[in-house]
Amino acid sequence: MVALSPAEHWTPVCTLGILGGGQLGRMLAQAALPLGIRCIFLEDDPHCPAAALGPVYGSNQLADFAAACDVLTTEFENTPLSQVDQLAALGRTLQPPRQALATAQNRIQEKTLFNQLDIPTPPWQAVSSADELGQAARDMGLPLVLKTATGGYDGKGQFVLRDLSQLDDAWAMLGEFAGAGGQLIAEGFINFEREVSLIAARNQAGQVRFYPLVENHHHQGILSHTLAPAPEAECLQDAACDYLNRLLQHLDYVGVLTLELFVTAQGLIANEMAPRVHNSGHWTIEGAACSQFENQVRAVCGLPLGDPALQQPSVMVNVIGQHPDRQRLLSLPGIHWHDYGKTARAARKLGHITLLESDVSARQQRLRELLDCLPEPMALPDWLDQTASDC
Amino acid sequence: MVALSPAEHWTPVCTLGILGGGQLGRMLAQAALPLGIRCIFLEDDPHCPAAALGPVYGSNQLADFAAACDVLTTEFENTPLSQVDQLAALGRTLQPPRQALATAQNRIQEKTLFNQLDIPTPPWQAVSSADELGQAARDMGLPLVLKTATGGYDGKGQFVLRDLSQLDDAWAMLGEFAGAGGQLIAEGFINFEREVSLIAARNQAGQVRFYPLVENHHHQGILSHTLAPAPEAECLQDAACDYLNRLLQHLDYVGVLTLELFVTAQGLIANEMAPRVHNSGHWTIEGAACSQFENQVRAVCGLPLGDPALQQPSVMVNVIGQHPDRQRLLSLPGIHWHDYGKTARAARKLGHITLLESDVSARQQRLRELLDCLPEPMALPDWLDQTASDC
Repeated sequence: MVALSPAEHWTPVCTLGILGGGQLGRMLAQAALPLGIRCIFLEDDPHCPAAALGPVYGSNQLADFAAACDVLTTEFENTPLSQVDQLAALGRTLQPPRQALATAQNRIQEKTLFNQLDIPTPPWQAVSSADELGQAARDMGLPLVLKTATGGYDGKGQFVLRDLSQLDDAWAMLGEFAGAGGQLIAEGFINFEREVSLIAARNQAGQVRFYPLVENHHHQGILSHTLAPAPEAECLQDAACDYLNRLLQHLDYVGVLTLELFVTAQGLIANEMAPRVHNSGHWTIEGAACSQFENQVRAVCGLPLGDPALQQPSVMVNVIGQHPDRQRLLSLPGIHWHDYGKTARAARKLGHITLLESDVSARQQRLRELLDCLPEPMALPDWLDQTASDC
Repeated sequence: MVALSPAEHWTPVCTLGILGGGQLGRMLAQAALPLGIRCIFLEDDPHCPAAALGPVYGSNQLADFAAACDVLTTEFENTPLSQVDQLAALGRTLQPPRQALATAQNRIQEKTLFNQLDIPTPPWQAVSSADELGQAARDMGLPLVLKTATGGYDGKGQFVLRDLSQLDDAWAMLGEFAGAGGQLIAEGFINFEREVSLIAARNQAGQVRFYPLVENHHHQGILSHTLAPAPEAECLQDAACDYLNRLLQHLDYVGVLTLELFVTAQGLIANEMAPRVHNSGHWTIEGAACSQFENQVRAVCGLPLGDPALQQPSVMVNVIGQHPDRQRLLSLPGIHWHDYGKTARAARKLGHITLLESDVSARQQRLRELLDCLPEPMALPDWLDQTASDC
């Protein structure tokens, strides 16, 4: 617990060291500054998005980085555990806890923990040979998805097996990951209605705050839009909070934790967790009383948590691949533009736009105008013209 | 007009040079960053509040500073006109315009302009001798306030003349300013009900946006609280906008301009203008759709203005002299803390707190709790327990 005394002090109140310097680090530092908290970053790209807000240390400067900060956290899901261990050897503890990072980095450990805590998951089996994959297909039925247990993201390192004749192709593509410490997992296909996510913060005193459940839409494997709150999802909020709370308590978690879930006819099924602030929570900067970024900072710096209540219904749209037409975008009322300071590149998240508008039909109209400002053709989301399924 | 094309670009979109590096510069830079705009500062204190957000150039590096930025603005009312002229000699134009800065820096020029534009002011006379002061007292009656025309702020450089017997004392204190280019002004005393202020933004395309009128309360000559919106002031909004608009149009103003006004039985009377973002507009960061800081950045960078509409009734409380008890303060819902990163010193603005709360009685309760977190005894504002006068 960092002492933040009310006495006279020289700025900053404390220095927060963040592993990673991407847009999440940038937005964490933007939230930290008004609290009087300065951020520094461990990141090998000196021109990273976070560099605008504090000094950037290379990974070969880990000891200097650790010595320069009072509190340590991460913005990066795949934070190397070796770095966490190096910090521990220097007597420094990262928050969230190592176990949360390790678990989230391995799909088998993650689903094992979910099931241990009675959090529903799709059916799954660890597989270490083509024969075990064939057995999994017979046990769980087809289609199923073969995934590497570690390292995959945005649909990479996955093979969708639709027919037993594809067994050899699947193994040819991913079998190499099954040996020498690597692992594969076969997951049964889930027939879901929609994807939602829940974000919570827990601080060192054990205080927990949940944001409202939001609905997520993907385009080519990358999050494209988030609706906050998820439409007609009040009946799902309690179950989602219950599941996420089990994880927070079990892991003695400190920081922001995100749980991605499928909504199915059988209820909520957990997909995965992210031990960090999350893209589906970017709307909280303007749409919630206290943002996920400020709450992550408060949690790890020993401060009371802020109010996660939704202030106004929000839609978050990711800007991917190309920059928007700023003149047109900024002429729209109710929008907030967040430029991450990156060079344009295909499939790269360059920024996000949050649209605040309580009126449903005005929101849909504004959203059409907003999508018109994005150079990359983006399909109009289905939910623009349909109402969500009943609870 | 700065070209901000939607094409691919390397960050930042543009670099904004700000004259001054105090908390206003810090908050301008915080608003600029999500727009993809980087700030640099001209400021002789390298540890100024804005230093957390960009490089700081000393005043002896003016040419380097000018060369390093695309657009120039100021956060400082008393920006030396010599700097504006040096920049002009380098072919660089500051926004807002020089005339607005010059006028706001001289009470006689300011009131002359107000009267020229039919904006009501207290009665006033320029005085250059003790005899003229005596004549002013006989013309306007007592009490009157003798002020230096330039350089005074927060009640400094002023003498309240209540009786003709004080004429010699007043002249002994301030008479030296009446010669060698200096000037004095005698202002008639105004019997006002309350003080309000209006903030507007105007951009290069001539687009104008007005924030709602707010009510200001002072403590020992320094702004202590702002209520947004000003209670029961709808009937004053149009007249205030009309006055401020005359100034914006006459000055061909670009940026944020603030007009301070007295509410009297005879209607609104202009006190002074500030050619910059203003302490009475800090509530707009959370309380308005688009903050005064973002609108200043948008205005001077050739972007469309954002929506100034109030989102939730707000109270802004300045933290002066000593830091608050952060643990207690951050445990209150609905509050936003803005630490300016300064060392504590008597009468110094160290930060501000914005309280958002729509319910009047909840707001009063929260405000009491909030004031309890401030170490420096601060009188409970009158308006906690009274309703505002009728329109």
